[in-house]
Amino acid sequence: MSELRKDPIVDRWVIIAAERGRRPNDFATQHAPPPGSGGASCPLCEGSEPKTPPETWAIRPGGTTPNTPGWQVRVVPNKFPALQIEGDVNRRGLGMFDLMDGVGAHEVIIESPHHQWQYADGPAALVDLALRGAQARLIDLYRDTRFRYCVIFRNYGPQAGASLDHPHSQIIAVPITPKRVKEELIAARGYYAQKERCLFCDIIRQEQLLGERVVIDREQYIALSPFAARFPFELLVLPKQHQHDFRSLGDAQRLALAEIMHDCLRYIRTALGNPSYNYVINTCPNPIPRPGRPDQWGTIALDYHWHIDVMPRVTRIAGFEWGTDFYINPVAPEAAAQFLREIVADENRQRQEEGVPVDG
Amino acid sequence: MSELRKDPIVDRWVIIAAERGRRPNDFATQHAPPPGSGGASCPLCEGSEPKTPPETWAIRPGGTTPNTPGWQVRVVPNKFPALQIEGDVNRRGLGMFDLMDGVGAHEVIIESPHHQWQYADGPAALVDLALRGAQARLIDLYRDTRFRYCVIFRNYGPQAGASLDHPHSQIIAVPITPKRVKEELIAARGYYAQKERCLFCDIIRQEQLLGERVVIDREQYIALSPFAARFPFELLVLPKQHQHDFRSLGDAQRLALAEIMHDCLRYIRTALGNPSYNYVINTCPNPIPRPGRPDQWGTIALDYHWHIDVMPRVTRIAGFEWGTDFYINPVAPEAAAQFLREIVADENRQRQEEGVPVDG
Repeated sequence: MSELRKDPIVDRWVIIAAERGRRPNDFATQHAPPPGSGGASCPLCEGSEPKTPPETWAIRPGGTTPNTPGWQVRVVPNKFPALQIEGDVNRRGLGMFDLMDGVGAHEVIIESPHHQWQYADGPAALVDLALRGAQARLIDLYRDTRFRYCVIFRNYGPQAGASLDHPHSQIIAVPITPKRVKEELIAARGYYAQKERCLFCDIIRQEQLLGERVVIDREQYIALSPFAARFPFELLVLPKQHQHDFRSLGDAQRLALAEIMHDCLRYIRTALGNPSYNYVINTCPNPIPRPGRPDQWGTIALDYHWHIDVMPRVTRIAGFEWGTDFYINPVAPEAAAQFLREIVADENRQRQEEGVPVDG
Repeated sequence: MSELRKDPIVDRWVIIAAERGRRPNDFATQHAPPPGSGGASCPLCEGSEPKTPPETWAIRPGGTTPNTPGWQVRVVPNKFPALQIEGDVNRRGLGMFDLMDGVGAHEVIIESPHHQWQYADGPAALVDLALRGAQARLIDLYRDTRFRYCVIFRNYGPQAGASLDHPHSQIIAVPITPKRVKEELIAARGYYAQKERCLFCDIIRQEQLLGERVVIDREQYIALSPFAARFPFELLVLPKQHQHDFRSLGDAQRLALAEIMHDCLRYIRTALGNPSYNYVINTCPNPIPRPGRPDQWGTIALDYHWHIDVMPRVTRIAGFEWGTDFYINPVAPEAAAQFLREIVADENRQRQEEGVPVDG
């Protein structure tokens, strides 16, 4: 018997139709192709620096000159940006319609000089450098009060919309609060108003109590298979200590995040055979002081709880989903969590035999 | 310069980034493969009736026996339904979560006995038969008060999630009002409360006034390139006379709808080279009388205005969109409308030369 489940954050029901005849490991069929050889033909490889716009941020341990080789992580404006950095947003109406100029930032975080490095390869210290790039750019972009929000996301593999196979993430700063984020903010505010507790903290406690959807539970972070997951093997990664702003991460906290993210993506790769995936960092909007016009989201940002959605792309989205924002997930989140936990356990057994430290 | 545009119905901004270097006809590259030969290997072809569950509705001009050949349109339950028809929804909580049993209907409208018939082939009279099937099933399924909504949709081609190439649509009856539909209902109610006018009727008048996004404007229907379209060449088809319920369509009205839908899909095929597409019929929810518990959607259904969203699948959706419900559309809706209007004009010129009646 399938189930209808309501997302505890946004007002969306999902059909969990686990009985449709497919088992978790039936999804291990859609592999992202191996990356090409990179080098001179790849605009993001070490040595191709002149092919990108000038970098906005980089880690250069040897103190090398910007826009030359010698970097570990490098952030550059997108060569074909969806938004442009200069100008005012120029809000206006057109009859009954609303529009503004496409002002914003669209940057690429080049996560490694090596074309074939994968996020799932790790080690966590390298993932941490990439996350440091995201955090540094978020801090800088939120200084620009034209930008209300920054979306930080990673597209891996063709099914996830990646057009380049060199390891990279993206950051888009926008002069509005995107719809989904606003819905989450409204939900968090409403929940706090009613209970004086954080919605996301309560979800963590609820899932710990029920147990069956927890994939990894460590000192600082938890990775869950969400109760009303839209996609098979979707994961939700949350800091266990309430924190609303991704900019506030300390170094140790960021390294612990790198560890759990690296592990989540490694387990997904093992479980599903290198699938395409997207992940998105959800953080509070830019708390812009607007005298005389209190920013309704800025003021409630403390109720929010940043988190990362990891979405393997193993099923196709059809008209039903586009038309209704109503999803059919053919894998029960509990089954996905169990499948991933077994992979963790297998790996830990193997590590124990090899005398390597064991994961949580 | 790109633009940010707000959807006039739901609270969603879209980036119209037309300058990213692609022109409308650059999208004419993703062709759905031609259908196979069908026949005995296809479960939906004429002669394969024993391979489907027993039909719930059919047009059989010769009065043939159900579940045998001799039909024009045939509706059958989905062999692998996401929801099951028997039982009560059994609403319940699980800690802080909400769930119910997966009760609903999931049917397939087999639109033609001929495997290779395409919706875009027409003629409109055949499309009308398929729409008659949708309407008849909607009327019947709304008699079941467990069902709050029916989604009627068509997936054509692999990029649109179609798993069978035999011409078909689907209908899913669900015991909740899907998120997107609810958002539209709330928007329509709010607009009416403020203006005492229908939001959708106002959009039609606004677009007629501005002109540049109108693709086809006929006596009964209009086809628009929406102001804040999420996808290139997306179309919105609306009845010009206010009508909230797709069940109310008269025969002449349905035939006129078949004509404009056939034309829209034909123009899209010509413009984009047989792309995959989805379309979704958006109608009012089931106005279920619930004594003592007034149905908040049932009571406002008169403010709603049914419509059809046609979404060619020519771009890939990435993490940005999934994470934020915020879309980047690389084709300006005006440019898409103009491109389609030129195809209409070309075709009309050709028809005139051939002495065939001309389209509006």
